[in-house]
Amino acid sequence: MAKTMPRSPLAPAGFPALPEIAGVRFAAVAAGVRYQGRTDVMLAVMDPGTSVAGVFTRSATRSAPVLDCQSKLGGAPTKGAAILVNSGNSNAFTGHYGQTSVSEITAAVADISGVPQERVFTASTGVIGEPLPHDRIVAKLETLHGALATDALQSAAEAIMTTDTFPKGATAAVEIDGKTVQISGFAKGSGMIAPDMATMLVYIFTDAVYEQSALQDLVSDLNETSFNCITVDSDTSTSDSLMLCATGASGVDATGNASFGEALRGVMLDLAHQVVRDGEGATKFVEIQVTGAATDADAKVHGLSIANSPLVKTAFAGEDPNWGRIVMAIGKSGAQADRDLLSISFGDILVAEKGWVSPSYREELGAAEMKKDEITVKVDLGLGTGKATIWTCDLTHQYITINADYRS
Amino acid sequence: MAKTMPRSPLAPAGFPALPEIAGVRFAAVAAGVRYQGRTDVMLAVMDPGTSVAGVFTRSATRSAPVLDCQSKLGGAPTKGAAILVNSGNSNAFTGHYGQTSVSEITAAVADISGVPQERVFTASTGVIGEPLPHDRIVAKLETLHGALATDALQSAAEAIMTTDTFPKGATAAVEIDGKTVQISGFAKGSGMIAPDMATMLVYIFTDAVYEQSALQDLVSDLNETSFNCITVDSDTSTSDSLMLCATGASGVDATGNASFGEALRGVMLDLAHQVVRDGEGATKFVEIQVTGAATDADAKVHGLSIANSPLVKTAFAGEDPNWGRIVMAIGKSGAQADRDLLSISFGDILVAEKGWVSPSYREELGAAEMKKDEITVKVDLGLGTGKATIWTCDLTHQYITINADYRS
Repeated sequence: MAKTMPRSPLAPAGFPALPEIAGVRFAAVAAGVRYQGRTDVMLAVMDPGTSVAGVFTRSATRSAPVLDCQSKLGGAPTKGAAILVNSGNSNAFTGHYGQTSVSEITAAVADISGVPQERVFTASTGVIGEPLPHDRIVAKLETLHGALATDALQSAAEAIMTTDTFPKGATAAVEIDGKTVQISGFAKGSGMIAPDMATMLVYIFTDAVYEQSALQDLVSDLNETSFNCITVDSDTSTSDSLMLCATGASGVDATGNASFGEALRGVMLDLAHQVVRDGEGATKFVEIQVTGAATDADAKVHGLSIANSPLVKTAFAGEDPNWGRIVMAIGKSGAQADRDLLSISFGDILVAEKGWVSPSYREELGAAEMKKDEITVKVDLGLGTGKATIWTCDLTHQYITINADYRS
Repeated sequence: MAKTMPRSPLAPAGFPALPEIAGVRFAAVAAGVRYQGRTDVMLAVMDPGTSVAGVFTRSATRSAPVLDCQSKLGGAPTKGAAILVNSGNSNAFTGHYGQTSVSEITAAVADISGVPQERVFTASTGVIGEPLPHDRIVAKLETLHGALATDALQSAAEAIMTTDTFPKGATAAVEIDGKTVQISGFAKGSGMIAPDMATMLVYIFTDAVYEQSALQDLVSDLNETSFNCITVDSDTSTSDSLMLCATGASGVDATGNASFGEALRGVMLDLAHQVVRDGEGATKFVEIQVTGAATDADAKVHGLSIANSPLVKTAFAGEDPNWGRIVMAIGKSGAQADRDLLSISFGDILVAEKGWVSPSYREELGAAEMKKDEITVKVDLGLGTGKATIWTCDLTHQYITINADYRS
């Protein structure tokens, strides 16, 4: 962990220029929670009037910070808000001590920032089951608070990385009533990524005015087709957290605005895709488009069964157009399928139809598709109108290397 | 595929001495279905009066031979039976041509053996989606039939191997009313192993008399706690088949006999464990004992979630006592769990209890357990009396090596 890994071959060219969001300031610091020689704590402080919404892992063993955040959602937005995140230690499965750590940190952040403790949210990411040295974080709060600045989004994004090989940011602007509102967000995530909610840490900020309960509905809804449709390794973190904060500083009310929703959806998808692109050991970015399923839910089940199959993922790694493994993954998913109505394509190459290989298919066509860095698999069940799109990556030797000695 | 892999380090010392089963004869031949220089077809022919029972994959994309076998189960046992199995090609997702291949083969076996076609069962294992060259098999039937012998169980077991590194056999004898009945069985399976029924090919024979529908109930029941409790890679084959044949040649009626059931269960567990021991790339044999769950079904869900987690499996590969990943896998399983009632042990080492690491646990104790070839993980949910035991292996570089170029 925290070994320097080479930047993912699927990474974007660089961190995007994220517009500052009026009403929120950021800072990062090196507190030595676990890593040496890098920042590992970030603080965001938001002005009074900020609406805060969030989606969190449903894991039965979720972390103390997640439980604390969930208990605080829905609080009055009148008094500002703060988010503190550390990397290196997840404060998960740390018993009652875990809650003590959260209380110590949130109380100290409240003291120094003036934000009430019930509006101080935290997250922790890293190793499970070791006590969080919260004193190291508290000791740095004065430095952190003194450094708060509106332009520090990238350093905040970098401070929350664990096995990530690049920081992940995304942005969008929306015109509403002739005025512009901004959305900027960042995320971390690389392994232990599977859809039971956000499957990583994601923080998105906007200067729009947005009524808090409507903001919650919006983020819950958009999450279903973005972060809940990605998977690296089928494993779901105990710390997954997605928070969306609307400071209202622009004075523009975006509540219920469709263009805002679309722009936010774009930011969420962009971040979700970047997490897949930084999947541990990933060399292929794979989009699985499932159509013609009996229901949307069935389409998602099939898509995830394909995306999580070790045999499918290793075939991608080997650039092997082994569509038989896709047939296998559909068959085992438990969702409705009819072998003889199924069709499968790699990109625009029709591979299989009517229960067998397509007469037009030749192995070299499939093999050429597999050579690409970005592969699209299209599956049509021929049963109905249900559809889903799932994003994943391949399973390579590097995944084993990273995870067979993560903690040693 | 069919490259010579080194024998699994977890393999038994050798193939067991399988007693002959009166009433059934075997033969194997090299038909060149796909592999060169090895046998790839086996035939078993059973005497009139043989009861035949079976359990098959529930995959929605199951193979033509599986569909054919399922349609034939329950036929009258008066006229004998035959089983023909080929390796190298699974005859799965081969459209209507797949059914034609099955018909051609079963008709030809019927012709040469005198067994009615509706009592000729087949299975095919290997690559998916390519037409089975059934003519090559039919051309060898005369040779095969001429070579039938009661002592050819090992050569039959060898002919059905694909990525297996060793043939798998098991046997038991049971005393009933002062007489002995024999059970001998063999299996193949190494990758694409996950519990949705047999998860491989398994053939078990006994000279006991056993009423056919009771035999079916017995094998269905025992399958749930043997082959349905193993997983190598969470992927389920389209060809999984388990058949149990009771020739009745001993004249001893074992129908409903508890000792016979226990002996059969032992043979099935032995074969199931051997499949895990030959899991692609496996270096650790892992038994996961789940107790204290709300229900048996919940216990199985938790056990399989642990066993199928890539992060848990890579931790075993790295000999890393990373119990946090076990907490994660329990949390994500969807079955009932309470973080603060959970306890986890590696062998006899109590690792975690009451929502946190045990005060008595020290990392070096867990690390020593992980060095073993055979690892036991005990999870107690603290909720009820539900229990299950699951067997799996680790996830290593060799799995990636085998599967990233299986077909190329």
